[in-house]
Amino acid sequence: MGSLGALADWGLLDYKTAKYVMTRNWRVGVLQRLLQLGALVYVVGWALLVKKGYQEQDLDPQISIITKLKGVSVTQIKELGDRLWDVADFVKPAQGENVFFLVTNFLVTPEQVQGRCPEHPSIPLASCWAHEDCPEGETGTHSHGIKTGQCVVFNETHSTCEIQGWCPVESNIVPMEPLLVQAENFTLFIKNTVTFSKFNFSKSNVLETGDNTYFKRCRYDPLSSPYCPVFRIGDLVAAAGGVFEDLALLGGAISIHVLWDCNLDVGGSDCQPHYSFQLQQRSYNFRTATHWWEASGVEARSLLKLYGIRFDVIVTGQVGGARWDGQSWGGRRQQSWSDRLSPGVSQAGKFGLIPTTITLGTGAAWLGVITFFCDLLLLYVDGEAHFYWTTKYEEAKAPKVTANPEQTEPASSPPNPAAHVA
Amino acid sequence: MGSLGALADWGLLDYKTAKYVMTRNWRVGVLQRLLQLGALVYVVGWALLVKKGYQEQDLDPQISIITKLKGVSVTQIKELGDRLWDVADFVKPAQGENVFFLVTNFLVTPEQVQGRCPEHPSIPLASCWAHEDCPEGETGTHSHGIKTGQCVVFNETHSTCEIQGWCPVESNIVPMEPLLVQAENFTLFIKNTVTFSKFNFSKSNVLETGDNTYFKRCRYDPLSSPYCPVFRIGDLVAAAGGVFEDLALLGGAISIHVLWDCNLDVGGSDCQPHYSFQLQQRSYNFRTATHWWEASGVEARSLLKLYGIRFDVIVTGQVGGARWDGQSWGGRRQQSWSDRLSPGVSQAGKFGLIPTTITLGTGAAWLGVITFFCDLLLLYVDGEAHFYWTTKYEEAKAPKVTANPEQTEPASSPPNPAAHVA
Amino acid sequence: MGSLGALADWGLLDYKTAKYVMTRNWRVGVLQRLLQLGALVYVVGWALLVKKGYQEQDLDPQISIITKLKGVSVTQIKELGDRLWDVADFVKPAQGENVFFLVTNFLVTPEQVQGRCPEHPSIPLASCWAHEDCPEGETGTHSHGIKTGQCVVFNETHSTCEIQGWCPVESNIVPMEPLLVQAENFTLFIKNTVTFSKFNFSKSNVLETGDNTYFKRCRYDPLSSPYCPVFRIGDLVAAAGGVFEDLALLGGAISIHVLWDCNLDVGGSDCQPHYSFQLQQRSYNFRTATHWWEASGVEARSLLKLYGIRFDVIVTGQVGGARWDGQSWGGRRQQSWSDRLSPGVSQAGKFGLIPTTITLGTGAAWLGVITFFCDLLLLYVDGEAHFYWTTKYEEAKAPKVTANPEQTEPASSPPNPAAHVA
Repeated sequence: MGSLGALADWGLLDYKTAKYVMTRNWRVGVLQRLLQLGALVYVVGWALLVKKGYQEQDLDPQISIITKLKGVSVTQIKELGDRLWDVADFVKPAQGENVFFLVTNFLVTPEQVQGRCPEHPSIPLASCWAHEDCPEGETGTHSHGIKTGQCVVFNETHSTCEIQGWCPVESNIVPMEPLLVQAENFTLFIKNTVTFSKFNFSKSNVLETGDNTYFKRCRYDPLSSPYCPVFRIGDLVAAAGGVFEDLALLGGAISIHVLWDCNLDVGGSDCQPHYSFQLQQRSYNFRTATHWWEASGVEARSLLKLYGIRFDVIVTGQVGGARWDGQSWGGRRQQSWSDRLSPGVSQAGKFGLIPTTITLGTGAAWLGVITFFCDLLLLYVDGEAHFYWTTKYEEAKAPKVTANPEQTEPASSPPNPAAHVA
Repeated sequence: MGSLGALADWGLLDYKTAKYVMTRNWRVGVLQRLLQLGALVYVVGWALLVKKGYQEQDLDPQISIITKLKGVSVTQIKELGDRLWDVADFVKPAQGENVFFLVTNFLVTPEQVQGRCPEHPSIPLASCWAHEDCPEGETGTHSHGIKTGQCVVFNETHSTCEIQGWCPVESNIVPMEPLLVQAENFTLFIKNTVTFSKFNFSKSNVLETGDNTYFKRCRYDPLSSPYCPVFRIGDLVAAAGGVFEDLALLGGAISIHVLWDCNLDVGGSDCQPHYSFQLQQRSYNFRTATHWWEASGVEARSLLKLYGIRFDVIVTGQVGGARWDGQSWGGRRQQSWSDRLSPGVSQAGKFGLIPTTITLGTGAAWLGVITFFCDLLLLYVDGEAHFYWTTKYEEAKAPKVTANPEQTEPASSPPNPAAHVA
Repeated sequence: MGSLGALADWGLLDYKTAKYVMTRNWRVGVLQRLLQLGALVYVVGWALLVKKGYQEQDLDPQISIITKLKGVSVTQIKELGDRLWDVADFVKPAQGENVFFLVTNFLVTPEQVQGRCPEHPSIPLASCWAHEDCPEGETGTHSHGIKTGQCVVFNETHSTCEIQGWCPVESNIVPMEPLLVQAENFTLFIKNTVTFSKFNFSKSNVLETGDNTYFKRCRYDPLSSPYCPVFRIGDLVAAAGGVFEDLALLGGAISIHVLWDCNLDVGGSDCQPHYSFQLQQRSYNFRTATHWWEASGVEARSLLKLYGIRFDVIVTGQVGGARWDGQSWGGRRQQSWSDRLSPGVSQAGKFGLIPTTITLGTGAAWLGVITFFCDLLLLYVDGEAHFYWTTKYEEAKAPKVTANPEQTEPASSPPNPAAHVA
């Protein structure tokens, strides 16, 4: 009580309230009310409720992607004869990661061994007339090996530098028509699980139904079945804006975007992924080789130049609702908060005190702006502006700046307002 | 001075201070002080200090993950005899990426060549009684090849359609018990480096100790050694809520979440990762093949249907402290700011001017709300509400709206407040 | 009008404006104007315009990365003789993902078959004097197989336990000098596309020029050609702070950071990636094997212990400008907003109503803080502080707390302010 007494002596407990001049000016009055109403509707109605300014959000899901391709294809290759390709042959890597490659065309150089042979004429600086044209040890980024210094016969029409490397060299033939055209009918199954650790919320794109055969039967279609995670390659390429025949011939890269935008307030049931497709590149190929030792103990390899479609499955997601503020930082606060204090994140995860505080606080600041604006109207625009001005602003002359002796007393004694405005 | 003079003439240099009515009303006075104290404590104490509302944050680390599996296992396979598997055999891909596959079981079809053979009876539409049952060229998503149109004998009990493809076809036997049960004792080493570019802060989960043998000896345990990055597969599966024997038999997918939540104010020393595990899928397999050319020049392959556990190492992280605002956007501002102006990001990276500004600014707005609330109490609830009301609101009638002639003068001359309230 | 009438009766339409005391105190007046000007400049000039407080931002791009290595290298290996390596041999995986491995050195164990052979002496517990030293079935994490219980001769100097496994066992020789030193001159091509879905903005790091040969000729250089996506491995390692010879010998891990920081207000033309490099690890190796069946029907494998440089291409990005607020949450709001209402995201994506509102609102709150601060000066510091105090605070005694009977009337009738201060 002592400290309270002290506060009292300092006058800190006297409640001071701003003195107002009440005008009967309805023009400004009505305007002020309308503006205040507008601000209230914007803040509470729009920013807080519609935009869920009270909500947390997790923008940083933990993502797991599993892919599986299905289909078989038969093709005619003169080197290999009539040949059937199945998933073990045309998907690399085979283990179903989020980035994988579907072989649709290839150039095979079946049995290469280390040795000496003529370079391919298509390589820059390969053609030669004499040994002088082939400096020993020379090599280039596109060449198939190291020049031995010899100029040898490649075929009846060309002579090229002999190289040390994998022989025979690959023929740089660009295939005329794709070998695995049936790939258009293959199906891609994508299983994607997103985990929003802050909300203890985890969702997969395939666990919606108990009917397992559904995922064997269904095919993704943006209109009829937008949530079926099984995609026909041909449709997928078309949706990405590509022509399958072209991509199958020279390869290409396509990205599959999976977007999760969920609002947990209405339960996780409406939480469904949205798929979109984008053509990243119009030509794609790479070389790979399988090595083995021949009976003779010589290492051999089969070189494959693979053309095909590379798929990138890219997932982005957010839960919670969009909001005026606290989108991610509120979320963060909530996270670290609940991490430390409350175990039940999934329950506590929705409402955020601080987002709400800042939303309303900023709204309050705007009410002040409105008042300031109305004052301007009243004091400088209104018909009786001058009268209001003089009423609102009560002049107070500091005593020593006036010659009038009686004016000195207010400094010492409580002033008579009437006196100052005389 | 001229412009200053002008400002003076406009009265812009006269300091105007709001006029207050000082009541001796302690009830409201004390309440106001308490509320203001509460707001102050919340803003400065909680939001600014506890929640580090003055801080920047980087939510977007650059992540690098390296994994390494260790262990050997021996198994009995009738096709292959007594066989030892080491890491080169059972980890795919071998190069230690963040997503990898541990083979725990497999179905091998050792030597397949392109040719004609009877389809497996388990395949839909494979069984036949006559050639009519086998339309030539027909194929299905699950079939092993293209039907030739012949109906041939598969074994004493079944006749199936002949297919063109890799022969002999794989037997769809589901293994009864896992072949690589010892995989339970394998160890997984995870090296993870996170770089928060904004703060020039980089941290790894293995560089804490100079004692390199520590990482050979230690095993992760949530209680005893939560920071050891070496995980026993069996423990890991259990922690994810799986039964190793089941996963080893038919495969599965497990995600390993690594969460970094660091506060650089207390130095990077307390900055340690937290590991959690989640079972994503209860069955997982894929087919892969190794190709080679036999002495006869015929291409052969060994088809492997691999069952096993797929591991996804998923890293998320943030540095800085959770805060009232500026979580990420303040961070961003700081980043782009320091990118442009200051080289020493790591020093400048902690304190953020704008987060602090908005934190305090919003707090100030709330003080206004408190005053408004107290005024309501004083004017409509308090015992002398009416008296306070009349005192607070000084009525000012615009001259022309009153019939009273003497009331017209105040418009021209400074008004006498006493007059208006008469 | 009825409701309006009601509002009028409640006096809600009377415009109330705060009454001010106008002092001729220029000291405080000028100070106040200066502070207000400062706040205005900070809010509008700095936070809103310079820091683009009116802008949205997308911090969460969708990223697609394609890499391609080029080069050939010749090396002398006693097991394999003079041998040329090309990209099909030294890049794993071959398909050009964002994480890949460049083989610079290796230890090959050419033809292993399942069988029994002496363990390598370098393995712990491998050396033995008698069969008792070799408990049957024992194995260790580093051993090459399962002990058979026999102690056999490894070479003239050592006797080791016989093991069941891949034989002969790998010799744990650490290579003295790298085999693929030419790898220093190989080139790495990185194609990276970032898509900011919120702004419908997509950008690649290679599509800037129509001249395709440019990307064959150019080499990345931080000064002369910072936007060329072709990197010489040697330069890249040096930029990461590594010594190529060391990394080539025992391997290492390097992360390549690609940072996109774009401001769409000035068009996407200035939107260019910035590359940085970091040495993650100073030693890196793994084992892989290629399997095949020998003519005899025995499975054989060639075991490779690969040393080399692992590259992680890590992309982070943001569009929009850094700003006072709304960094990501404003962005989010904009996103979900435009997702629902407006199709033209790319147009609507720049300006954000809510970021602007909160920026200005918080600024308004600070003007209040300034006024409060100036009042303190006027009332407690200024020369005529007491006079101003008494003028600002008009005392109002609630009637019943005073003994003076005539003081009771103001409660009932509109009060005469002059009376209270008498």
